[in-house]
Amino acid sequence: MIQTPYLLFLGDAPDQLAAKVAQGIKDWRPDNAVGQYRMPGCGADVGIADMTLQEARAAGAKTLVIGVANRGGVISVAWKEVLLQALALGFDLASGLHNLLRDEADLVAAAKTHGRSLFDVRVPSVAYPIANGVKRTGKRCLAVGTDCSVGKMYTGLAMDIEMRKRGMKSTFRPTGQTGILITGGGVPLDAVVADFMAGAVEYLTPDNDPDHWDHIEGQGSLFHVSYSGVTMALIHGGQPDALVLAHEPTRKHMRGLPDYALPRLEALRDMVLPIARIANPACQIVGVSVNTQHMSQDAALAYLAEVEGRMDLPTVDTFRQGAARLVDALEGI
Amino acid sequence: MIQTPYLLFLGDAPDQLAAKVAQGIKDWRPDNAVGQYRMPGCGADVGIADMTLQEARAAGAKTLVIGVANRGGVISVAWKEVLLQALALGFDLASGLHNLLRDEADLVAAAKTHGRSLFDVRVPSVAYPIANGVKRTGKRCLAVGTDCSVGKMYTGLAMDIEMRKRGMKSTFRPTGQTGILITGGGVPLDAVVADFMAGAVEYLTPDNDPDHWDHIEGQGSLFHVSYSGVTMALIHGGQPDALVLAHEPTRKHMRGLPDYALPRLEALRDMVLPIARIANPACQIVGVSVNTQHMSQDAALAYLAEVEGRMDLPTVDTFRQGAARLVDALEGI
Repeated sequence: MIQTPYLLFLGDAPDQLAAKVAQGIKDWRPDNAVGQYRMPGCGADVGIADMTLQEARAAGAKTLVIGVANRGGVISVAWKEVLLQALALGFDLASGLHNLLRDEADLVAAAKTHGRSLFDVRVPSVAYPIANGVKRTGKRCLAVGTDCSVGKMYTGLAMDIEMRKRGMKSTFRPTGQTGILITGGGVPLDAVVADFMAGAVEYLTPDNDPDHWDHIEGQGSLFHVSYSGVTMALIHGGQPDALVLAHEPTRKHMRGLPDYALPRLEALRDMVLPIARIANPACQIVGVSVNTQHMSQDAALAYLAEVEGRMDLPTVDTFRQGAARLVDALEGI
Repeated sequence: MIQTPYLLFLGDAPDQLAAKVAQGIKDWRPDNAVGQYRMPGCGADVGIADMTLQEARAAGAKTLVIGVANRGGVISVAWKEVLLQALALGFDLASGLHNLLRDEADLVAAAKTHGRSLFDVRVPSVAYPIANGVKRTGKRCLAVGTDCSVGKMYTGLAMDIEMRKRGMKSTFRPTGQTGILITGGGVPLDAVVADFMAGAVEYLTPDNDPDHWDHIEGQGSLFHVSYSGVTMALIHGGQPDALVLAHEPTRKHMRGLPDYALPRLEALRDMVLPIARIANPACQIVGVSVNTQHMSQDAALAYLAEVEGRMDLPTVDTFRQGAARLVDALEGI
């Protein structure tokens, strides 16, 4: 686990989008972030206090999280100075960058000198077991999408927060870099070796109280030929009790695959349920989560109502409407 | 690619089963093996000439293949002497052992000294791309099983040999250690990182002549929760035109999963076809391959006839009957 709370490093992010990891931490786990660190020329602002490294340490920050995409795939000299100083001041460093902290000799040396840790969350740090398929105690919910990047992580985070507001037992279980940085732990599933994918998900969602819900972060799509194997391992390793179907209705084709049309929600429903019931015969589809960000409010509400009628399932946009109706649907399971 | 032909190293194999990789090479690619090397106490014999290292080199052998499982997970001192001598005589070494040749400092040093290569076929040697899903030319056939280890590799090898006997264009495409050692190349799919599984299968089965068939080695099962993600990536990366359903009717539960019953062939058919048609809308199920090794001849033939009637598909045991009827079914595609 990465030590919290964090100082969010925005560096010289050119715009707000480049700082989306930092924004996610601030939105979903505000208690995890004491402040943000911005360099000259930074075009992003996640809306918390600007702090120097020293101020953040004094405020209790334990880890500097690189909450920004870097340019050109290199960790720049300007960043390096800040990162080295942070290590000297007692920060650990955490990053989801493609180029790894551990591949930077000066950072490795400074971490060793100061007794600090470098967390590259793209790389598995555990030797995961092969899945054994044994039924685990506690409940699990998984969002499965008609495509990649349709709001599965957002749905899981929103359901987790809604449950905790209600005093229910709930944990969000990240399976990707952003989710891992938001919560401080998880499994970078797309980087796990094939034989151990389902076992990594079992490891991520262990036995728990009978009334505890894990919200497992979804990945990929059964209909996305590049990543469907990862989705399959999530379903069989996660052995979910409840599935939420996730969809983005304005997309013209599968993400990155111009020759592949998106499936209808009915096709996803009909494919995923028999697959999920191999690992958990009691699995049910409890609702639909639609990302309507590219639709007007009126068009969005009309679409949600149409899908709800067609699918006979609670259908919401968790960004516009919250996850209350999806959590209601779980309460009966 | 591993250089052929081979000398098959049986070492001190306690019994015939321990030498199944060597047996597979001898059975399926007899031209790839000039002889076998057996140490004192070896209890296996794959039925080809015993040779010394020198005799095998004189007969043209380029690679010594460790065609045997080792005991206790270590490469013994007794083996080492032979392997070091082989490197000095100009052999490359190839192995599918869990403990890697490359982790043995003395073998690495000797290979360097003598300019030889060490092939650990459990480890990917290529940076595979992410799958792009683009339709490829040529035809592809994949066996999918109700469980792991039900005869998928055997089915693919038998269909490949039958096609080549008929003068058809055909290639067996290995996705596991044994298949890679048999043919000299392939993708160790269970060791590939999740994001690149489907891309590795695309890499393995590139564009080809319109009348050429790739027989892709199947892995795992959609119904085996430990490995179903690998199977999914094979189906979507392989974009097969034809599927053969593989089954072992005497098994009491899914391999290694005592709480999981085997699915019926009908359930596999109904699940796999919509999945396969995402990547290749023309995909068809062409036949059933049953491993009846644990049944009497009479019981086997009766079972095959019963399945053929029930499934309305050519149904054979490729070991007892060859793959002719399965290849017949491909000729129309």
